[in-house]
Amino acid sequence: MQYIDGGVCAAKGFSAAGIWCGVKANSSPAKKDLALIVAEVPCSAAGIFTKNRVKAAPVLFDIEQLKGGKARVIAANSKNANACAPEGMENARRMAAAAAAAAGVDVSEVVVSSTGVIGQRLNVEAIEKGLPEAAKALSASAQGSDDAANAIMTTDTVKKEFALETTVGGKTVRIGGIAKGSGMIHPNMGTMLCYITTDCAISSPMLKKALLAANALSFNRISVDGDTSTNDSCVVLASGLAGNAEITAEGADYAAFLEGFTALCIDLARSMAADGEGAKHLITCQIKGAKTVEQAEIIGKSVIGSSLTKAAIFGCDANWGRVLAAMGYSGEDFDPEQVDVAFASAAGRVEVCKDGRGLAFDEDLAKTVLTEKEVVIDVTMREGDASATCWGCDLTYDYVRINGDYRT
Amino acid sequence: MQYIDGGVCAAKGFSAAGIWCGVKANSSPAKKDLALIVAEVPCSAAGIFTKNRVKAAPVLFDIEQLKGGKARVIAANSKNANACAPEGMENARRMAAAAAAAAGVDVSEVVVSSTGVIGQRLNVEAIEKGLPEAAKALSASAQGSDDAANAIMTTDTVKKEFALETTVGGKTVRIGGIAKGSGMIHPNMGTMLCYITTDCAISSPMLKKALLAANALSFNRISVDGDTSTNDSCVVLASGLAGNAEITAEGADYAAFLEGFTALCIDLARSMAADGEGAKHLITCQIKGAKTVEQAEIIGKSVIGSSLTKAAIFGCDANWGRVLAAMGYSGEDFDPEQVDVAFASAAGRVEVCKDGRGLAFDEDLAKTVLTEKEVVIDVTMREGDASATCWGCDLTYDYVRINGDYRT
Repeated sequence: MQYIDGGVCAAKGFSAAGIWCGVKANSSPAKKDLALIVAEVPCSAAGIFTKNRVKAAPVLFDIEQLKGGKARVIAANSKNANACAPEGMENARRMAAAAAAAAGVDVSEVVVSSTGVIGQRLNVEAIEKGLPEAAKALSASAQGSDDAANAIMTTDTVKKEFALETTVGGKTVRIGGIAKGSGMIHPNMGTMLCYITTDCAISSPMLKKALLAANALSFNRISVDGDTSTNDSCVVLASGLAGNAEITAEGADYAAFLEGFTALCIDLARSMAADGEGAKHLITCQIKGAKTVEQAEIIGKSVIGSSLTKAAIFGCDANWGRVLAAMGYSGEDFDPEQVDVAFASAAGRVEVCKDGRGLAFDEDLAKTVLTEKEVVIDVTMREGDASATCWGCDLTYDYVRINGDYRT
Repeated sequence: MQYIDGGVCAAKGFSAAGIWCGVKANSSPAKKDLALIVAEVPCSAAGIFTKNRVKAAPVLFDIEQLKGGKARVIAANSKNANACAPEGMENARRMAAAAAAAAGVDVSEVVVSSTGVIGQRLNVEAIEKGLPEAAKALSASAQGSDDAANAIMTTDTVKKEFALETTVGGKTVRIGGIAKGSGMIHPNMGTMLCYITTDCAISSPMLKKALLAANALSFNRISVDGDTSTNDSCVVLASGLAGNAEITAEGADYAAFLEGFTALCIDLARSMAADGEGAKHLITCQIKGAKTVEQAEIIGKSVIGSSLTKAAIFGCDANWGRVLAAMGYSGEDFDPEQVDVAFASAAGRVEVCKDGRGLAFDEDLAKTVLTEKEVVIDVTMREGDASATCWGCDLTYDYVRINGDYRT
């Protein structure tokens, strides 16, 4: 397994584009607001979507579209979420019809996404005008993926794009993805859009199975602010052009694919947590020695979701008491007197709590450790031998600034 | 029922004091750090405590102490939580023994609390020296309650103190309380300490029943930051000196007491939410038209707990889409197309969402409404006729500043 360039265009059979069509206000240089991803052949497809009771129109539309497990075109706009918006479903359908016409496929093969402000009418006319232009700009080069990754960004500060190749059934298979997500991020997915392409030959049911398995270890283990959005969508398309024997059941081939696919999803998920709105730190919380993986995950999510822990990491303050408090209110039962905590980073490691009690530690070293961009909160319990890793970010002045006036 | 002065000293039979003993560093003027409340007669007593799995030593101590439903002395320090701390239980016991000796009662009649930083050894020697001094300073005047209210403050910016009188069984009964709480505040209680005294004659079981009922409508409906602390405690003492026939069962007398008691608990709870760390706004979320009170409460708590909604209110931004999103991820089932939202305050009212869709509204008026200190988010559903009110505060730069470096 090794990393390669190309994002969603790395796998055989995919091209992508990103343009400015006018959903975002004009600016110089123009900020892209419309992404298009097209497969040259029909694909196995799978998607997972927000669990929020309030679902955006494109989410409801896509859930129907993907019931058959096939798709080959993805169109997505940023700046407007088309959620709780007038004519929401009608505009989602118009966007899909325009994408189908532009790409020359049947509308049944199209999924659409929107991300941005909730409650305002989508400027679908701009999208209808823009899609033929986006189709003209389609490129199978790395630039195509780059443009698409840029076009789905809202408050993101860096684009999220990864690709890797691995071997499945003796053939080289490529898996690549782009994502956006910065605020309204919480386990059970966030305000994230994520598109993954692969040329692995895999049936729709097995692709869906792989997506659910990888999601549980990646997108469901990140949190920026505890807010689960109305628009979260992750869609994967598999063109089958790698030439491997189609995966239709579990076995060595499925395991090889899943390993690479999960690694890619974790990369995308971590990059969203690291680019959380206003974030100065990526926080990785490792829970070891739990009774079960579920327990480890629930406790880890409670720690990365704690506003007080997040603010302490922003202040580079080794305030481990907040870690224990967050573990304690997770709802899980455990012995607080059997918990060790350490903070670690590229700058070193400092043990701060042993058996639920504070250790004397070098405050200067702790400050140095916590000043790094990537910080690990390393928790060891003595309940069992299960573990889980979750990712979050710190709570900063900039998070408040960004969200104090997002609409204007 | 009418409001009176005096806090915990308003009811007959109680005196209180607050002094500086040296748990907080010396400063000029000295910041009080030790509170003492003493009843002149044995009292019915009841307490409720944090549900955090990680409980501070004084919480574990008090739970045992209150099993018999009797107490007459409360000693509390600020600055150090005596949670996850070396010699925690031993120091809680030493503090109780010193309070018993200073007040001239048996140690079985004493409860103790600590609030502040987690994980550091409590300077119990300073408390042991301070308690006799606090006992000398005891006063049944309003000043005694004021001093005690000041002594339990940590990051609080204002003291929380209320008292009222009502009529029970033909007699005037007084109920008064003091509280602290600013950060680590979340439904299921926060880093709050709350002490309530009354001269109503009421049995221990009925006092506990009233405390649970009032708590459900007050302290369990506030959130500052979603963090449930290790130290939350609310203790009520009833001296019985009002001369009413002792309440030993439900009926008109219990109902009259409960009405006043609940009103007082809501005042204390609201004052904690309004003084949330860094808060510029008190947010009141009213949910009407829910299927059940439980549903209304779960949805209301989800709204006041939403970081994005809190940041929007800080920015005086009528971003109602975040209210709908927070309702949607509450886990409750409801029809999002049957939801109306309005923002209201002393400056007016603005309807922003009808049937789950945005209304055209006057942005200037909305800004004016949201600039007030107290803001109401008024949500109407069409699921049934149950309602609930919850309280929270906005998320501000100051919350991040306060919690970015709390220990030092």
